[in-house]
Amino acid sequence: MVHLGANRYGKAEVRVVRVARHAALDGRDLIRDWSVSTSLSGDLTAAHTVGDNSAVLPTDSQKNTVYAFAKKLGAVEPESFGLALAAHFVHTQEPITRARITIEEYAWSAIGGTGYSFARSGLLTRTATVVHDDTLGTHVVSGIKDLVVMNTTGSEFWGFPRDEYTTLGETKDRILATQVDARWRFRGFDRVNWAAAFVGARAAILAAFSGTHSYSLQQTLYAIGERIIAEVPAVCEVRLALPNKHHFLVDLAPFGLDNDREVYYAADRPYGVIEGTVLAEDAPDPGIAWD
Amino acid sequence: MVHLGANRYGKAEVRVVRVARHAALDGRDLIRDWSVSTSLSGDLTAAHTVGDNSAVLPTDSQKNTVYAFAKKLGAVEPESFGLALAAHFVHTQEPITRARITIEEYAWSAIGGTGYSFARSGLLTRTATVVHDDTLGTHVVSGIKDLVVMNTTGSEFWGFPRDEYTTLGETKDRILATQVDARWRFRGFDRVNWAAAFVGARAAILAAFSGTHSYSLQQTLYAIGERIIAEVPAVCEVRLALPNKHHFLVDLAPFGLDNDREVYYAADRPYGVIEGTVLAEDAPDPGIAWD
Amino acid sequence: MVHLGANRYGKAEVRVVRVARHAALDGRDLIRDWSVSTSLSGDLTAAHTVGDNSAVLPTDSQKNTVYAFAKKLGAVEPESFGLALAAHFVHTQEPITRARITIEEYAWSAIGGTGYSFARSGLLTRTATVVHDDTLGTHVVSGIKDLVVMNTTGSEFWGFPRDEYTTLGETKDRILATQVDARWRFRGFDRVNWAAAFVGARAAILAAFSGTHSYSLQQTLYAIGERIIAEVPAVCEVRLALPNKHHFLVDLAPFGLDNDREVYYAADRPYGVIEGTVLAEDAPDPGIAWD
Amino acid sequence: MVHLGANRYGKAEVRVVRVARHAALDGRDLIRDWSVSTSLSGDLTAAHTVGDNSAVLPTDSQKNTVYAFAKKLGAVEPESFGLALAAHFVHTQEPITRARITIEEYAWSAIGGTGYSFARSGLLTRTATVVHDDTLGTHVVSGIKDLVVMNTTGSEFWGFPRDEYTTLGETKDRILATQVDARWRFRGFDRVNWAAAFVGARAAILAAFSGTHSYSLQQTLYAIGERIIAEVPAVCEVRLALPNKHHFLVDLAPFGLDNDREVYYAADRPYGVIEGTVLAEDAPDPGIAWD
Repeated sequence: MVHLGANRYGKAEVRVVRVARHAALDGRDLIRDWSVSTSLSGDLTAAHTVGDNSAVLPTDSQKNTVYAFAKKLGAVEPESFGLALAAHFVHTQEPITRARITIEEYAWSAIGGTGYSFARSGLLTRTATVVHDDTLGTHVVSGIKDLVVMNTTGSEFWGFPRDEYTTLGETKDRILATQVDARWRFRGFDRVNWAAAFVGARAAILAAFSGTHSYSLQQTLYAIGERIIAEVPAVCEVRLALPNKHHFLVDLAPFGLDNDREVYYAADRPYGVIEGTVLAEDAPDPGIAWD
Repeated sequence: MVHLGANRYGKAEVRVVRVARHAALDGRDLIRDWSVSTSLSGDLTAAHTVGDNSAVLPTDSQKNTVYAFAKKLGAVEPESFGLALAAHFVHTQEPITRARITIEEYAWSAIGGTGYSFARSGLLTRTATVVHDDTLGTHVVSGIKDLVVMNTTGSEFWGFPRDEYTTLGETKDRILATQVDARWRFRGFDRVNWAAAFVGARAAILAAFSGTHSYSLQQTLYAIGERIIAEVPAVCEVRLALPNKHHFLVDLAPFGLDNDREVYYAADRPYGVIEGTVLAEDAPDPGIAWD
Repeated sequence: MVHLGANRYGKAEVRVVRVARHAALDGRDLIRDWSVSTSLSGDLTAAHTVGDNSAVLPTDSQKNTVYAFAKKLGAVEPESFGLALAAHFVHTQEPITRARITIEEYAWSAIGGTGYSFARSGLLTRTATVVHDDTLGTHVVSGIKDLVVMNTTGSEFWGFPRDEYTTLGETKDRILATQVDARWRFRGFDRVNWAAAFVGARAAILAAFSGTHSYSLQQTLYAIGERIIAEVPAVCEVRLALPNKHHFLVDLAPFGLDNDREVYYAADRPYGVIEGTVLAEDAPDPGIAWD
Repeated sequence: MVHLGANRYGKAEVRVVRVARHAALDGRDLIRDWSVSTSLSGDLTAAHTVGDNSAVLPTDSQKNTVYAFAKKLGAVEPESFGLALAAHFVHTQEPITRARITIEEYAWSAIGGTGYSFARSGLLTRTATVVHDDTLGTHVVSGIKDLVVMNTTGSEFWGFPRDEYTTLGETKDRILATQVDARWRFRGFDRVNWAAAFVGARAAILAAFSGTHSYSLQQTLYAIGERIIAEVPAVCEVRLALPNKHHFLVDLAPFGLDNDREVYYAADRPYGVIEGTVLAEDAPDPGIAWD
């Protein structure tokens, strides 16, 4: 005999582009370029066990709701969109007790002075996740991913333990490069200025990465988390996953050439991965925020 | 003031190919083609906060250990490899209290009758994850991903609720296609025949997918989980994530053509995602198995 | 002053799945799972220079035509589909003098004995390209890509020149692995059995790869081309692009272990690339076949 | 009987990062982040037909040469690097008569004011290709790819022919978005300011895209080519491939909502592709520049 455990379902990667005409301060169009994913849970046992779909709002309807809310809400911050959309599903679908909305936002920069011309920036992807549960409350986690940063010096790695499989040399000067995947949990969701929080967190990441003389990527990770919490008081917890994008000095000695930190090769695989959490001292319990 | 929360680090995607010469029953070479990822945790606070690396076994050493163990252990099942490697790190590195090993295995089929020629099968990726914690015990989760399956009939979807955003029609006959991401947790790790469990679970997935007249992908998901547990008694829990790879009938009426379930277009995005867990009635608590 | 040179336009990656119900010999459904791309050329100068679209059949119409032809033609071989579609565009659109149709076909294998259940094989992608020009004639080029093959022995590389940048050692035994990208041009397009030609060419590739004791990937490339032409008389030319998917022996000596062709790491980048053409002695001029 | 046709071989995607310390005007480090591919051709028949490698400089040596030249040449423009490297292979390897070097360059922006901290920009990829043939001369083709641009208005599409498969409506206002793949051929390679040419061509692309009221993507393509040639006199030919990244207005009428150019969905596949060439009136014959 078996039984159903945790489950959820929804529509992934609804690619909606919301244009607000002449909405910028200078009269330009504003763009919200999003990939929105919805995920609903509640009492869906009958759907799984006997094919009774009476509680299964179609994922096609969820997709339509994303489009309709994009119209109704305008070019809002992604966190605001997620909060409204998550509440809608829980409030209007009786069997649904929890909704999780995840948004990726791709940034565009104005070009050409037309007011309607843009280039996709490619620097990073902004993320926002909202979980709304009708008994366990609502949580917002925002983030950045796909941000690739490099220090060409100011990084060391030594003093590590050496076992029988250790051949790595110590270094007092290496390239440190990573692709930042950072997510930060907010203490609440009322009266938060989402746009300012994003700008503040992004600046904190760049400042901490560049400003930390690093003895390991772990240390840089901690500095980033600490800085975000310091700069954005509405944030109580930061989770980071930092791949170590190795850049190895090429041995040019066989060709009669020295290589004083000039020529590196950028390795693909394998790569290190450093994952860690930094919490404010008074961070409340995360509950279902990260589920 | 902030403090460090959960953290771990390791080497990702070590691409090791282990060849066992003339090891197959018919004298062929055997291949294990793996991507191995390691992740260690323990008391690593000093590394994060003050740049003290005395507990940080380099990820380069972890990579070397993967290669050395591939030599020592031979072309074993990935679960056996993970168990040995995870135990090694916890047993030999004093500050390390938990190791997590994840392996992806890519299958090759013999070609040409030489005994040493192969083609990569591409049908699916086999996965195995071992978590070894020095107080919380050891868990094994195996799985399959990248397996794309389709039923060209035998699937319905109707009886769902209709809200103001619902435009989807009901259907008694649609294509059902998904890319299976299945993972199954074992009750223990002694005396399990990993190879047989993999073969059994794979067969169960294919049999349940093809053999279920489906009223929703949720129902198919549950049938797959149920079948794996029934066929592989060493398994106590199955977690599945099934994207609904939509195939929509093309409207050919504008061209004076009917389309009686003949011409479909395969959509990329958005897509449905159905996630669910099926548990044996007597499944023990998962503990850290899925962390 | 500038002027317009060569140009073309069309719709790329129309993802059509054609199901023929109960059409297999054993009563199973047949599937053609395709990505079809169209490209038209002719006198399109006015569209480029003055925005006059009177000759520009919309790419949306080209997409619709793909679907309609999938209905009309049934689950035919991709070459037959391309021939009919290319001719259609040239014959019905007065300004269009050339059409190029490219098809990728993804194979599915029957599972479960239902007659309507399938798994995507993943072994390789079949390709077919048809160019129809109203004065320069019609050409068919078929192919295979994404086929990954490996010989675990039977490959050497030595006797190469050594310059000041050469550090590579000679080897009498290495792994040889590649991802085959092969295309073959047919002498004509009447009375060709496309299905048999594909099966023959695929078999020739596998036989030549496994059966060639290789002194270089160049030699293997030539053997593959030679074998296809020998086995499929309708083919007059083969073009191959073979990446050398390097598998390097891991140096385990630092760990006190030997490594007699047992443990390799599979490198990602950089990789060698070998490109070459093999022609039948009497191959006619390719004309626009490869444009 | 068969014979060998055109062939070449080399190393692909050598990922070299060249750091020039304190080399920027303001004392910052300079970075050249490249993926370099080499391809050599000449009399390599014996390698293909009898496994005689005496003319086959290993691709491993080619890789080493990339690294050594990065050291020797410094953080130069990619075109200068390609010219030197291509000449080296042809001049030093007797059987080699032609070398083709392709470089992708990834841009980094300074962050944090340290002089050694950078973020990868992600806006676009710069490309440079040099072909050096010992009888047919030397050609340089530079380019940009991965640049995604969008006009949210200022684009129309109407006046196209309608056949039996045409259902598309005419529009006087649509989103026009594309991912620019542009390559431009230089008249020569002496006394060209590669950096200035790149900056000029990039500006020309952005200005032409944003500044063209477009009746078709073909018209925009031509305007881009024309503008590059006008702004960068050293360029004589431009080849462009522009996917039409469709953004379709969502029909919100079923939900009682209008949609006056506000909510779009960004489609993945299929997509239009417009390819075209723009030439200066006095453009010399390209010879082998594009091979």
